[in-house]
Amino acid sequence: MPELATASDGAQVLEKNGAIGAAIEKLTGLFKDRCSTSMALREQHGHTTTWLKNQPPDAVVFAETTEEVAEAVKICAAHKVPVIAFGTGSSLEGHVNAPFGGVSIDLSRMNNILEVNAQDLDCRVEAGVTRKQLNSFIRDTGLFFPIDPGADASIGGMAATRASGTNAVRYGTMKDAVLGLTVVTADGRIIKTGGRAKKSSAGYDLTRLFVGSEGTLGIITELTLRLNGQPEAISGGVCPFPDVASACNAVITTIQMGLPVARIELLDEVQVRGCNIYSKLDLPETPTLFLEFHGSEAGVQEQSETFSAIAEEFGGGPFKWATAAEDRTKLWAARHDAYWAGKSLKPEASIMVTDVCVPISRLADCVAATAEDIRNEGFLAPIVGHVGDGNFHVQILVNLDDPEEKQRTEDFVGRLALRAIAMGGTCTGEHGVGQGKQKYMAKEHGEALDVMRAVKQVLDPHNLMNPGKILPQS
Amino acid sequence: MPELATASDGAQVLEKNGAIGAAIEKLTGLFKDRCSTSMALREQHGHTTTWLKNQPPDAVVFAETTEEVAEAVKICAAHKVPVIAFGTGSSLEGHVNAPFGGVSIDLSRMNNILEVNAQDLDCRVEAGVTRKQLNSFIRDTGLFFPIDPGADASIGGMAATRASGTNAVRYGTMKDAVLGLTVVTADGRIIKTGGRAKKSSAGYDLTRLFVGSEGTLGIITELTLRLNGQPEAISGGVCPFPDVASACNAVITTIQMGLPVARIELLDEVQVRGCNIYSKLDLPETPTLFLEFHGSEAGVQEQSETFSAIAEEFGGGPFKWATAAEDRTKLWAARHDAYWAGKSLKPEASIMVTDVCVPISRLADCVAATAEDIRNEGFLAPIVGHVGDGNFHVQILVNLDDPEEKQRTEDFVGRLALRAIAMGGTCTGEHGVGQGKQKYMAKEHGEALDVMRAVKQVLDPHNLMNPGKILPQS
Repeated sequence: MPELATASDGAQVLEKNGAIGAAIEKLTGLFKDRCSTSMALREQHGHTTTWLKNQPPDAVVFAETTEEVAEAVKICAAHKVPVIAFGTGSSLEGHVNAPFGGVSIDLSRMNNILEVNAQDLDCRVEAGVTRKQLNSFIRDTGLFFPIDPGADASIGGMAATRASGTNAVRYGTMKDAVLGLTVVTADGRIIKTGGRAKKSSAGYDLTRLFVGSEGTLGIITELTLRLNGQPEAISGGVCPFPDVASACNAVITTIQMGLPVARIELLDEVQVRGCNIYSKLDLPETPTLFLEFHGSEAGVQEQSETFSAIAEEFGGGPFKWATAAEDRTKLWAARHDAYWAGKSLKPEASIMVTDVCVPISRLADCVAATAEDIRNEGFLAPIVGHVGDGNFHVQILVNLDDPEEKQRTEDFVGRLALRAIAMGGTCTGEHGVGQGKQKYMAKEHGEALDVMRAVKQVLDPHNLMNPGKILPQS
Repeated sequence: MPELATASDGAQVLEKNGAIGAAIEKLTGLFKDRCSTSMALREQHGHTTTWLKNQPPDAVVFAETTEEVAEAVKICAAHKVPVIAFGTGSSLEGHVNAPFGGVSIDLSRMNNILEVNAQDLDCRVEAGVTRKQLNSFIRDTGLFFPIDPGADASIGGMAATRASGTNAVRYGTMKDAVLGLTVVTADGRIIKTGGRAKKSSAGYDLTRLFVGSEGTLGIITELTLRLNGQPEAISGGVCPFPDVASACNAVITTIQMGLPVARIELLDEVQVRGCNIYSKLDLPETPTLFLEFHGSEAGVQEQSETFSAIAEEFGGGPFKWATAAEDRTKLWAARHDAYWAGKSLKPEASIMVTDVCVPISRLADCVAATAEDIRNEGFLAPIVGHVGDGNFHVQILVNLDDPEEKQRTEDFVGRLALRAIAMGGTCTGEHGVGQGKQKYMAKEHGEALDVMRAVKQVLDPHNLMNPGKILPQS
């Protein structure tokens, strides 16, 4: 297989040649005041909710159509200038940083919902549509888009990072939700992958090759999405456990029994304390599961009762139903505000969030070993997770301006990633690789990483599509 | 993007050079009597349940380990000889034919179930394990492997063609069932893709790149599969409808309501007649849905009642429950014997089976237009489908030895493929492309076909992995 050009090949060399200036001139001619080099805007487009340092692009272009994206990519390709796709900037691992400079293509103005086919439970949206915008738009159709990573991310960005979230245990991830894509390739061509059929055996699955490719193989500009019917009934509630292990074991049994739980989230005692303070709850400060069941009235009642019995078997409970919609909303708002709740425990701290995913049988072990590591380091670091999938997050409250503390944090994250991989899991369940997780890719993928490099090489031979992400420099 | 070598580049040229003889000599040295050039065996490995003419490989090698597959591939690569992976030969579109000669690597002896992790609802199997073998093996664990294409195919072959079948509406396709793979690449390296975590955002989704690639990018030798818990209760039955449109409309409403039906299969009146004769049923000879519900006792009862009401709304019914397991088994055996039931309608005929998949809102239109086309041609051609996915099959009973009738059949299949594509669907929902559907790939994928060619080019630069499949010669 061919050697992949290093991240610097296209970018750094040509930047020295003034290629970026020439590209910006062409882009300004085309996009007028929708091409900007203002430092504030550039920093905003390098900045993310990440612990990595801001690396702003040289310019930001606000595209309004797929054709405009293609034109911008063609101009950048002609000048061998890097291109970074930007949605809402809510990614966590430095995905939108521009380590080699280049042009950020902001897709947030591509926010049209192009069609909703209620009969087929699908829709077609532009990449800049956000998940909340989509769900507001389709509410009256009786459908909903279930992928919920917490942040009001753009759908294009969610596809690019293979996002998931609280509902994934029941409804899957972006891998499952995307039926087809419109993609601008590295040479500025517009291709369509997949389609509207629920399944197909017609050739290579390019849709899922682009989902999770973080803008390194092409730019997603439109998506055909699978939608789900709004459940007839929803019930939910919280269930305390004496320790993390018993909570995890209750989750394992729930999943094994095939109970079609829609959400099953673990908050450790630190996280519960944060939620009590930030969201004004009065939960016992002990490891707690937040649950939600979707189905018919009788179905959700039956599921709740089955879960209650499981919880009791593992020493947990009582399972407190939140039957009223407003109580449920308050609970899930608290869950979604976990990030801020964590921060409220140590307001002066910076936050480094990381995630891993393991086979569910190893979940209790992995969480326990991680909690011990947190204690050993003396970190304040709530744990919260989409445990039905074996996926959990650690939010480390540290002072990242202190080089020693930053290093200890990075080392902790590294141990966590390798612990998950050693347990047959992955260094990231849903946040993506970006810059932050590149160093674990060789360990996780072995020689398969060469196949990834080969695919990157052939689809982006000059390494201009979001260079410096996913694939570590070899 | 680079030009793809044509199918003949590696193969035909080097065959002339006696490369195949040298490769077989090396293979015989390694595999002894597990390398055969007997014509009977070669024909058996070119032969499939396909309408395409048999194109036998030059030799057949029976591999017993991944390492042996890698050795065989390395020998073939060194001599630039094509390699065709073979499971059970139950594919339908000429997938295992050897149009440029080469070596068939038979994986049927790689039939070990390597691990079953009941807690994680996953298992690891060698590629030659068949789905019935796996389900027998795991029955006592309370788990089952839901993908059911009818034939007792090998799991490796099912992954290679992205197979699905009757349960897909509830449990997904091989795209969803495969968590990870061991693959021998074109240069004889052994790579592992994916893992045991239920989800991951760590890099390109190579697993789904190989699933559905029909052995053209590498040879799948081991698979980690997601399993499902056996449902607590199963109920099912049959429901007659006055016409295909009303049956399809009942299906659309069922899916839209989010009723978690496990199987929902349409048999048109011709197929019902065949089943009555072949499987000794006494169903009214009218379009009929076969259904199955999985869940709790209360859940399946509720689902059955909800479906009954839907059927009635569309003029169908009565929905006849088959509560006894043996009645249900008889019904589903009849469904699985649809191929033979169809043949029993015209025992002297050859059978050409084809499949397409459309958005479910277009299902009634697509089936109706196809039924009209069948009438116009004077074909006897039962229609049967996994209609919950918008996927249906036509089984044309013709004399393929008559060139004019063969041509008319091929033209009919072409019209059906293009009709499905024009409706936003795909030329094959689950059978794969092989040789038979190549001619529709450009129409379905447009310029995305160039991206597929680029991926093929970089992962198999000499076009030795199952050449002449999926990608039409450009």
